[in-house]
Amino acid sequence: MQQMLSRKASFNFHGEDSPYFLGWKEYEKNSYHEVHNPSGIIQMGLAENQLSIDLLESWLAKNASVTHFKEDRGGSSLPLSSSLFRELALFQDYHGLPAFKKELAELMEEIRGSKVRFDPNKLVLTAGATAANETLMFCLAEPGEAFLIPTPYYPGFDRDVKWRTEVELVSIHCSSLNHFRLTKHALEEAYQRAQKQKLKVKGVLITNPSNPLGTTMSKDELNHLLDFVISKKIHIVSDEIYSGTVFDSPSFISITQALLNHKKVHAGNDISKRIHIVYSLSKDLGLPGFRVGMIYSENEAIISAATKMSSFGLVSSQTQFLLSNILSEKNFRKLYMKENQKRLKKRHEMMVSGLENAGISCLKSNAGLFCWVDMRHLLRSNTFEAEMELWEKIIFEVKLNISPGSSCHCTEPGWFRICFANMSTETLNVALQRIKTFAVGICEDRINYQQALCSSKKSSFNKWLLHPLSLWRNHQDHESKYR
Amino acid sequence: MQQMLSRKASFNFHGEDSPYFLGWKEYEKNSYHEVHNPSGIIQMGLAENQLSIDLLESWLAKNASVTHFKEDRGGSSLPLSSSLFRELALFQDYHGLPAFKKELAELMEEIRGSKVRFDPNKLVLTAGATAANETLMFCLAEPGEAFLIPTPYYPGFDRDVKWRTEVELVSIHCSSLNHFRLTKHALEEAYQRAQKQKLKVKGVLITNPSNPLGTTMSKDELNHLLDFVISKKIHIVSDEIYSGTVFDSPSFISITQALLNHKKVHAGNDISKRIHIVYSLSKDLGLPGFRVGMIYSENEAIISAATKMSSFGLVSSQTQFLLSNILSEKNFRKLYMKENQKRLKKRHEMMVSGLENAGISCLKSNAGLFCWVDMRHLLRSNTFEAEMELWEKIIFEVKLNISPGSSCHCTEPGWFRICFANMSTETLNVALQRIKTFAVGICEDRINYQQALCSSKKSSFNKWLLHPLSLWRNHQDHESKYR
Repeated sequence: MQQMLSRKASFNFHGEDSPYFLGWKEYEKNSYHEVHNPSGIIQMGLAENQLSIDLLESWLAKNASVTHFKEDRGGSSLPLSSSLFRELALFQDYHGLPAFKKELAELMEEIRGSKVRFDPNKLVLTAGATAANETLMFCLAEPGEAFLIPTPYYPGFDRDVKWRTEVELVSIHCSSLNHFRLTKHALEEAYQRAQKQKLKVKGVLITNPSNPLGTTMSKDELNHLLDFVISKKIHIVSDEIYSGTVFDSPSFISITQALLNHKKVHAGNDISKRIHIVYSLSKDLGLPGFRVGMIYSENEAIISAATKMSSFGLVSSQTQFLLSNILSEKNFRKLYMKENQKRLKKRHEMMVSGLENAGISCLKSNAGLFCWVDMRHLLRSNTFEAEMELWEKIIFEVKLNISPGSSCHCTEPGWFRICFANMSTETLNVALQRIKTFAVGICEDRINYQQALCSSKKSSFNKWLLHPLSLWRNHQDHESKYR
Repeated sequence: MQQMLSRKASFNFHGEDSPYFLGWKEYEKNSYHEVHNPSGIIQMGLAENQLSIDLLESWLAKNASVTHFKEDRGGSSLPLSSSLFRELALFQDYHGLPAFKKELAELMEEIRGSKVRFDPNKLVLTAGATAANETLMFCLAEPGEAFLIPTPYYPGFDRDVKWRTEVELVSIHCSSLNHFRLTKHALEEAYQRAQKQKLKVKGVLITNPSNPLGTTMSKDELNHLLDFVISKKIHIVSDEIYSGTVFDSPSFISITQALLNHKKVHAGNDISKRIHIVYSLSKDLGLPGFRVGMIYSENEAIISAATKMSSFGLVSSQTQFLLSNILSEKNFRKLYMKENQKRLKKRHEMMVSGLENAGISCLKSNAGLFCWVDMRHLLRSNTFEAEMELWEKIIFEVKLNISPGSSCHCTEPGWFRICFANMSTETLNVALQRIKTFAVGICEDRINYQQALCSSKKSSFNKWLLHPLSLWRNHQDHESKYR
């Protein structure tokens, strides 16, 4: 039977055996609930933004007519227009609702400090950023051709951009030594490595702000990247789905903005036609359930092909209409973005200081719904086996689902992505308390062990490295500590 | 520049140069409107169901709370639940809303006369049938492998199932001699032809009820098909998106129902795992704008892979919730389906008798939103060039956008698909009047010409065939006849 299916359906190219997805499954089996399951697993592996949904709810409470297929014209709510429902029910134009695209283009401009212009006609709607990224790969590369991608990167990319397109991803190795910044050297090294593997490189895929780092790319990094793609004559896909979450300085610089300043130097080349932006309302507006993603490109052939491909994942007209109405209230839109960033900043501070209390530090970050957390000191050894061991302890004993760096293709063991915006303050407090008890426990055990070693005069570095594994077993007996 | 894009984006594999899509473009440039553009083109190339939208509108008027993110529990409408919007905003589970899938499975059962059972867990939601068909191809075949498909078929399949998957479609030639029925011989001939082309055949793709024929497949046809796929050990994809539109006898037999009766003969084989159904709410409920499609399969590997692939086109949670509420009212659901079929039947009769008045006959049909119309007697010659000539006359002079058989890969020139459910009765009357004037005009011209030939004693068959072309030019001078 199996041989009658495609390889895509038969084998696990989807990547769901990654701890990123396995952690979700464990969470689903035993989800934390304040009252009903206080010893359950807390989901910190999901980059979801729940912090400002109340703002949208308030808007909806004030604008009930919009959800009920009534149009709000000139400020006054008109009675139910029988033609509006009909219009939406039948609307399947893959160019999308013009009013919606206009608001989306404006929103994208505002997020970029109104320093760049977006033309609604160059915007292609897709059912989420997942589809946007895949569509771009279908448009830009043949099966077997490659995109370079800085590590660590979003684990879902192995599914989104590789699975059905059969495009290859080649890692650009970034290092903790320079805070995982993109360098000329790393770009060139990745390119050469791809060439040795006989892979034709068609572009670089970046996420800016970065998932999982939570950092925005600097002007220098973007300039290096532009120099690189200009010299190699390849594309940039810039996934900017977290662009509205930048809650602290430095401010966000989109690739389009970097290009505006860069172009003066590189006038005459066609680089602007090789830059494609992915955006979505799932993170900035916290609306993943509504499935709104988009591609922005200055390349007419890409816009044309991507528009046709959007037939495979159009956005529900009902949803386009509702969101178009919400976004058309400019004051609300600005208030939402500002308040959301304020709340994210506060939440981020809570997370960082809570981890500090547990003796754990994070990469300095200014965006996103997560921290990139350094737990190298908690590893038994500087290996990915030790990272997986720690991850298993954290999910099964500490009862937190976090994402190990290896699932993000990080090249250094001991880093984890921990999400902070998909839960209440109370739940985050429980999680931070669990981490603290756990981390302090390890350190105390280590100190006790070292003291015991010193007193018995048999101190040995190797044993010190290996011993904590046995100490873990004690933790299992005291699991209630983490509840 | 162009070489930096993929072949999919660079070349026209999308098939938009087909008259099917070209006709739409012409329509968009000069759309008919009763008052504002009475001489514009009437869209009869769009299989859209507008006949029963008023029923949905009435339901919505009575159930306003549902659209406003209020839950209707136990019959009584509760006040706005702040958690419902939050729940929907965040809901992105690719398994879909369980309540929605339950209603969809029941609807599918009802449409099949409750003779087969559908398990909601074997249903995968997709953003429309377009995505459902493509997803199945990704799951069942490698690039370069083939599916057989009876002609004439839906022009969009060249995009939906071939473009990104690179799967090949091989025509099963059906003939007007037996009313385009599927025969053992035609199946086997197509299979052998594919083999000669070194194509590995992975399955047969059928649409039942057929688009463009408007006919349901008979028990015999389905049995031939089952025998064939069992012997070849290949799949069936049965696109049944028009199953709720069957307005006349014989009643609809789904492939699953045919299999139930067939299995007794073929016990022990795994054919049930190789049958996959595509369904959608775009046609039966007239809701293409809401983008709800689905795959039903008994094959766990397919369900699993298709569910993961549905990430590229999930249905908006807002829309799932609304439709789940509408469909959960069983009385309304049944009333809608019955009334919709009644209206389709009436509309179909109007179309058939209107064409008869113009001396044009249709294939006898009992389903769908269109007629398969025989205009062979209006061709200048029995060629596809003559068919295109006639199509151009009809779109540019008669001002009707209809789909020529060649765009549906029909092997015999002179057949056209004409849609009848995407307009008002008044507009259909205008269209029928235009056709009558046009067709009668041709016949009169021919009679006059023949009489002239007879009287001048220079009758010649060849000239008779060729002459009408010049007569067309006269029609251009009398274009107002068709307004």
